[in-house]
Amino acid sequence: MANLTDTAAWRALDAHFRSVSAVHMRDLFARDSGRFERFCVRTCGILLDYSKNRVTAETMRLLHALARERGVTERAQAMFSGAHINETEDRAVLHALLRDSRDSPVCDVGDVLRAGVESSLDSMERFSEAVRSGGWRGRTGQRITDVVNIGIGGSDLGPGMVCRALAPYADGPRTHFVSNIDGAHLTSTLECLDPARTLFVVASKTFTTMETMTNARAARRWIVDSLGEDAAVARHFVAASTNRAAVAEFGISPDSMFAFQDWVGGRYSLWSAIGLPIAIATGMERFRELLAGAHAMDLHFRDAPLDRNMPVTLALLGTWYVNFFGVETHAVLAYDQRLDRFAAHLQQLDMESNGKSVTLEGTTADYATGPIVWGEPGTNGQHAFFQLLHQGTRLVPADFIVAAHCDHTLADQHRLLVANCLAQSEALMLGKSAHEVRSELEASGDPTQSADSLVPHKVFDGNRPSSTLLLDRLDAATLGALIALYEHKVFVQGAIWNVNSFDQWGVELGKALATSIARELLDHGDGGLHDASTTGLIAEYRRLSH
Amino acid sequence: MANLTDTAAWRALDAHFRSVSAVHMRDLFARDSGRFERFCVRTCGILLDYSKNRVTAETMRLLHALARERGVTERAQAMFSGAHINETEDRAVLHALLRDSRDSPVCDVGDVLRAGVESSLDSMERFSEAVRSGGWRGRTGQRITDVVNIGIGGSDLGPGMVCRALAPYADGPRTHFVSNIDGAHLTSTLECLDPARTLFVVASKTFTTMETMTNARAARRWIVDSLGEDAAVARHFVAASTNRAAVAEFGISPDSMFAFQDWVGGRYSLWSAIGLPIAIATGMERFRELLAGAHAMDLHFRDAPLDRNMPVTLALLGTWYVNFFGVETHAVLAYDQRLDRFAAHLQQLDMESNGKSVTLEGTTADYATGPIVWGEPGTNGQHAFFQLLHQGTRLVPADFIVAAHCDHTLADQHRLLVANCLAQSEALMLGKSAHEVRSELEASGDPTQSADSLVPHKVFDGNRPSSTLLLDRLDAATLGALIALYEHKVFVQGAIWNVNSFDQWGVELGKALATSIARELLDHGDGGLHDASTTGLIAEYRRLSH
Repeated sequence: MANLTDTAAWRALDAHFRSVSAVHMRDLFARDSGRFERFCVRTCGILLDYSKNRVTAETMRLLHALARERGVTERAQAMFSGAHINETEDRAVLHALLRDSRDSPVCDVGDVLRAGVESSLDSMERFSEAVRSGGWRGRTGQRITDVVNIGIGGSDLGPGMVCRALAPYADGPRTHFVSNIDGAHLTSTLECLDPARTLFVVASKTFTTMETMTNARAARRWIVDSLGEDAAVARHFVAASTNRAAVAEFGISPDSMFAFQDWVGGRYSLWSAIGLPIAIATGMERFRELLAGAHAMDLHFRDAPLDRNMPVTLALLGTWYVNFFGVETHAVLAYDQRLDRFAAHLQQLDMESNGKSVTLEGTTADYATGPIVWGEPGTNGQHAFFQLLHQGTRLVPADFIVAAHCDHTLADQHRLLVANCLAQSEALMLGKSAHEVRSELEASGDPTQSADSLVPHKVFDGNRPSSTLLLDRLDAATLGALIALYEHKVFVQGAIWNVNSFDQWGVELGKALATSIARELLDHGDGGLHDASTTGLIAEYRRLSH
Repeated sequence: MANLTDTAAWRALDAHFRSVSAVHMRDLFARDSGRFERFCVRTCGILLDYSKNRVTAETMRLLHALARERGVTERAQAMFSGAHINETEDRAVLHALLRDSRDSPVCDVGDVLRAGVESSLDSMERFSEAVRSGGWRGRTGQRITDVVNIGIGGSDLGPGMVCRALAPYADGPRTHFVSNIDGAHLTSTLECLDPARTLFVVASKTFTTMETMTNARAARRWIVDSLGEDAAVARHFVAASTNRAAVAEFGISPDSMFAFQDWVGGRYSLWSAIGLPIAIATGMERFRELLAGAHAMDLHFRDAPLDRNMPVTLALLGTWYVNFFGVETHAVLAYDQRLDRFAAHLQQLDMESNGKSVTLEGTTADYATGPIVWGEPGTNGQHAFFQLLHQGTRLVPADFIVAAHCDHTLADQHRLLVANCLAQSEALMLGKSAHEVRSELEASGDPTQSADSLVPHKVFDGNRPSSTLLLDRLDAATLGALIALYEHKVFVQGAIWNVNSFDQWGVELGKALATSIARELLDHGDGGLHDASTTGLIAEYRRLSH
C-alpha cells in the first residue's frame, strides 16, 4: 500500500488544511444555516452531530477521498469475510460474527463458525439462567448472590463497563470485577462476600494470564478454606477460556468452561463468553439485545455510504485532528454516570489497537497514529479539567455523549445534565471575545469585576471542536451500537494509518522483564542485568521490605 | 516578569535541547554508573528516582537556572506568607496553613488565622468522634453506619480519593461520594442505604453549586419522606461550607456547619473541613497524620535546595518535556489499586491550575502550559493502553508510583506488583532493537515466529522517559506527602509559566450557557440565541423526550 503521506488525498488535505485551519467555527455557522443537518448522521438510536468540528463540506469531501484511497470499504469487507487481516498473528478478526444474525448476516463465513457462535450463546444462556433462577447453587446448597469476574484488560474492561452501564436493568446476582495483581483488589472485594454464595468467573483466553491466574488461585484458597473441600471449586468457579486442559486442572468442570475462538481479540471479547457476567446480571435477553444493537451498527458500517457512515465520520474527523492539527489526545466526555468506565474501555480499544508506529509492510510510519484517549463523566469533568479544555494552550477534540431519556425518576436532574452537555460544546465552539467580556463586566456594575486587568483572563478563544452523540436511551441495544461504533471507528483509522489494529506486541517486553525482576526482588541478586536505575530500585525495595 | 521565551535560561535550554534530544538513555546509563544516586531524591517516606529521564547533569543545571530566573523560591515564600498571589481573585493561597504546625511553622501568618485553623480541626474532631462512637445518632436513635458526601470537583475528588487510598485504615462508617448532576449517581447510591442510619455531608464552599445543591435537595426529600419530619434534616445533614445563611435555610444546625476560608481553593481543600468524610472514616488521628505528612513535604519544598527538591524536580522535568519535547500529556501510573482515583484527583489539581494561556500580566503565552494528566492503576493499564506507551508515535512522560509495603496478606502478589512496575519503566527506557528481536526469534526455534516480516513489529525504540516514586508504605502520612508533592509541582510549573494557578475562569462560560439551555429544553423556544448545532440538538432532545 502506498505510504499515507504520498497519497493524492493526503496532499490535497494538506493544502486544504492551510486554507481552513484558521477559520473560526462561529463564521462557519454564520455562513451556513443548514450546517447542523448537513453534518448530522442518525442510526441505531444514536444521533451524531459533528457540525461543531473545524471542517467544511470540502474538508469532508477530501477526507472521504482519503478513505477511498486507503481502501477502507474493501478492508472492512475483508474483515467480515474472515480474511486473516491480523497478519502478524495470522488470524481472522471476526468479533462481528459474535453478534451476527442469520436473517441479515454481515459476516460472509461458513456455517460451522456461525453454528459454533450460536451454540456458545446457548451454553451461556443455560448457565446464566441456572445461576439467576437458583438452579445452580453453591456447594452448601445456597443460591448465588454475587459473581466475581477475575480477568484483566479485555476480560475486565468491557464486561465491567457494560455491567455498570446497564445497572438499572440488572436483576440477577451482583457482579464484581477483580483485575489488578495488587492483592488489595481481591482482598477488598472478598471482604464483604460470603463464600457459600459467591461464584467466580475466571476470564482468560489462555488461562495463563499472570494477574488473572494469581488472583484465581487466591480466590480458590478462599473458597476451599471456607467451604472445606476441593470439590467446592467446581460449584464456585467457571471459566471463560479456550484452554481446556488448564481449566480442568484448576478444578473447573469441562461443562463450566465457556469457550471462544482465536479470532476474538481481547479488546473485542465482551460479545463472547467474556460477556458472561453481563448475561448473569441482566439476563440473556438483555445480552442478546446488546448483541443486536452492535449488529445493527455493523450493518450500518458495512452498508452506509461514506458520507452518511457514522463510524467512518468519527474516524475521519479524528484523523483530521491527529494528522493535520497535530493533536495528541481525544477526550471522551460521557454525560452519564453509568458510563463512568466507558473512557477506560475506549482507552484499551483505541490505544492498544492503533498505538503502533510500524505499518503492515513493516516500515516506520512517518505520520502520527492513534491518540491518547481519556475522559471522565460529565458533569464531573466540568469541575475538574474543563478549565484546560476551554482556556489551555492545547486543542483537545472531544466526543460528548448523552441520552435523551433516563432510567431514574429525577427528571429535572436529567434535564440539567443534558443542558450542561449541550452548553459545554456550545461554549467550546463559541468562545467569548474580549469585547463581550468587557461589555459584560461593565453591565455587571461590580467595580471589582470591571478592572481591565481581568479581561484577558475571562476571554475564551473558542473554535474548539467536538462531536455530540445524542442517544435515545442508554439501554442494552443502544449501548451495543455505541460500543460497535467506536470499534469500527478504530478499525477505519487503522486502515488509514495502515497499521495492524489487532496485535499488541508492545505489551511483551515489560512482561518478560517482570518475570526476572520478581525473582530478584525476593532474594536473588540482579546479576548485573539491569541499568543502574532498576538495580537501585530493586535494592531499595529489598532494603525497605526486609 | 520577563516573557519566558526571552529569558537567558530558556535560550540556554533551547540550545541544549538540540544537542541532547536524540541521545538514548541507554547510553546515558552506560556512560555514568552513578546515574541512579545522582538523580535520586529521598524525603517524607518517598524515594524519587528520576534517572530514567532524558536529562543530563547539564540539563538539570540549566533547569535549575530557569527556576531561579523565574523566582520560584520567592514565589513560594510569597505564598507561605499569605500574599495575595491569586491576583485575579485577590486572595491569599494558604492551604499549607491547614496542615501547618506551631513547632515548625511553614507559613508566616498572624496568630488569628492559625488559631482559626486549629479551632476548625477541633470541631471536626469532636463531630467525627461523635459519629464514630455513636454519640451522634440519627433521628430515630440509630447509629450512623453510612456517610454520603455530596460535593463535586475539589469537594469530591480529594476526599473521595483519600478515602479509597486509606481503606485499610477505615474503621468508622462507610463513606460514599455523590457528585454528578446525573440522577443515576444519587439514586444508585441511596438504593442500598437505610435513611435512619445515613448521614449526608453537603460540601460546597458557596452552598450554591448547582450539582451539589440539587443532589442535596433530592437527598433531603429522601430523608424527610422516610423519617417523616423536617426536623430529621438536622440529624442527617451537616455541611462543609462558608455560607452560614444558606446552610441554616436548608435546615442544617449552625453547629453542624464546618467552615473554611476563602484562601482555600477547591482543588486544595481536602485538608480543610472538606476532609470531614476522611476523618469520619479513618478517625481524626489518621487525618492529622495525613496533614502531618503534607506538612513535612511543605517544609521540604520550602527548605531543600533546588537540586535536592522533590516537587521542583518533578516540575522541571515536566517543563522540559512540555516546552522542549513538545509533549501534550503526562501519565500517572500508580501501581496501587487503592490509588485508582489518584490520577482523577491530579487531573483537577494540574489541569484546572495550569490549563491557562494568559500570563499574570494578561498577555497571551507564546509557549505551551499545563499538560493533560491521565492514567489508570497498574498493572491494569499494562493490559489496556501500555501498547501505545511502548510502541506508539507519541512521547508520554510517566510517573510510576508504588509502595514497598502492602497492607494485605498476599505478599507474593505485592512482589509481583512491584516487579511489574519496575519492569515497565525499564522496558520503556531500554527498548529492544531489531538485532535483539532477531536473535530472540532465532533462538526460539519457532518457524512461525522467525519470519523476517515479524521483526519490525516486535522492535521497541525505548528512550521513553519516566520517574519512579517508591513509597515506604501507602499510609496516611505518606499519602499526605504524596499529594502535597504534586500540589507543589503544579505550583512551581505555574511560576515558571507565569500563570495564575489558583483561578479557574474557564469554567464560567459553560455554566452560564447551561442555565439558559436548561430552560429551553423544558418547553421554551431557544429564542434564536444559539448556533444551528445547539438549536438542532435542543430540538432533537425535545422531540425524543416528549
